[in-house]
Amino acid sequence: MTALIFRGQETLVGIPADSRGFAYGDGVFETMRVDRGRVHWWDAHWTRLATSAERLGLQVPDYGFAREACGSLFADNSDGVLKLLVTRGGEGRGYAPQPNAPPVWMVSRHDLPARTQCGLALHWSQTMIAIQPALAGVKHCNRLEQVIARGECARRGTDEALMCDGDGHVICATAANVFVLLDGRWRTPRVDRSGVAGVCRAHLLPVMEASEECLSPADVEGADAIFLCNAVRGILPVARLGARSWHDLSASIEAARRLAQLHPGLVLDLEHP
Amino acid sequence: MTALIFRGQETLVGIPADSRGFAYGDGVFETMRVDRGRVHWWDAHWTRLATSAERLGLQVPDYGFAREACGSLFADNSDGVLKLLVTRGGEGRGYAPQPNAPPVWMVSRHDLPARTQCGLALHWSQTMIAIQPALAGVKHCNRLEQVIARGECARRGTDEALMCDGDGHVICATAANVFVLLDGRWRTPRVDRSGVAGVCRAHLLPVMEASEECLSPADVEGADAIFLCNAVRGILPVARLGARSWHDLSASIEAARRLAQLHPGLVLDLEHP
Repeated sequence: MTALIFRGQETLVGIPADSRGFAYGDGVFETMRVDRGRVHWWDAHWTRLATSAERLGLQVPDYGFAREACGSLFADNSDGVLKLLVTRGGEGRGYAPQPNAPPVWMVSRHDLPARTQCGLALHWSQTMIAIQPALAGVKHCNRLEQVIARGECARRGTDEALMCDGDGHVICATAANVFVLLDGRWRTPRVDRSGVAGVCRAHLLPVMEASEECLSPADVEGADAIFLCNAVRGILPVARLGARSWHDLSASIEAARRLAQLHPGLVLDLEHP
Repeated sequence: MTALIFRGQETLVGIPADSRGFAYGDGVFETMRVDRGRVHWWDAHWTRLATSAERLGLQVPDYGFAREACGSLFADNSDGVLKLLVTRGGEGRGYAPQPNAPPVWMVSRHDLPARTQCGLALHWSQTMIAIQPALAGVKHCNRLEQVIARGECARRGTDEALMCDGDGHVICATAANVFVLLDGRWRTPRVDRSGVAGVCRAHLLPVMEASEECLSPADVEGADAIFLCNAVRGILPVARLGARSWHDLSASIEAARRLAQLHPGLVLDLEHP
């Protein structure tokens, strides 16, 4: 990775030792797909960042300055992943936030993940995702639940894990939202008590005429099709969830075709079975 | 603050840009009181750190090396606060933990907080603390809930906030455990679904013959006495909680006397009313 670190508009040589991001995960982030130097969904990512920051009462960097810093990482017009991470500024120990401290923030460049060549294998996570309306929807930096759940995948030999909240409602995968086709209609879990309001999810909701609902594990296992999605990898059709298999991935592949019309980089390489 | 940062036993010049602590709050920490260069409860803090790290599947630094690094920060035998923060090592983007990556960790020295001169004023936090058994008890670095709740205190003019979980059970203050005297017996909330298993709390449980219980806000408001506690500040008697006042703080002051017998640094300066 290549990274630039700032406090406000001041360049830092590294992450400060008194960083509230390091101490408390006191920040928010965006992970953006870059195609030929361009972030196709930049406006949506910036809007979510600003909304998330406002919910947590933390300041965002100056828009023009941040955009320029991001652009400088992809001045070679290549493909990749751009991450923008904004943490609350302020010195000293203790949870109390300091008003008006300039944010400590970082932009970094990463390689694109490998394209998916077949449908994903999932399992039901043993780790529930906590119900917390104060943080729901926000792409914040408190991600221990996702780290623990993702760690299960290596042991289970799966690609991703589906997580339920404490009431047993299906919420998301560790790093993706989930859509299921039930009774001819695409549905995705509500994210007002847990989970992240994904940028790809937000773009898909209207074009898929999808609804936000409470979904049970039985709803998901009974679905005619299921896919994961995020703003870097687009739509990822699911072929297996525990003992349940989906052999016909055509509905998810069709959804991916519609997504590719919205975002030219998010083309699915998966061959039609 | 003065800080030393390491990857395993290698000294780093700063927190690495790819730190999982910075990205995800993927770590645990201990905040220790130092009196004349000595951490009286070192063993208890180290044991909790190791237990917390094991629960999250992350590696701790070598014991002797870490103890020496901590000692070097207080070689002048002064008083202060020692913080030991251990994050999961590993490179790259994404939640998946990398097995066997040496931890990135930091020890830092801070000033002691001012001694409390009177009973604390609390309010009931508007921010609930999420129910998450996978993280309960652990002093991990995902602290956004506490940051948000602590931010309420400045607006409300209080010293601390009491937090309830999603089921309405009282759990803790933002940076302290809570004990209440009910029917002649000290009680403290269970921390098996939310909250931190505090080191001071653990020392107090047997000497106060206290019990771990489910407590409601009505239990707390109906208590004959209430105090907060943590390993840096010891016992903090509470004088006010919203509209409820406690004028006689003698039971909490008596508890503080017993604590001072366990830990010579944790003497209460509060005068007997």
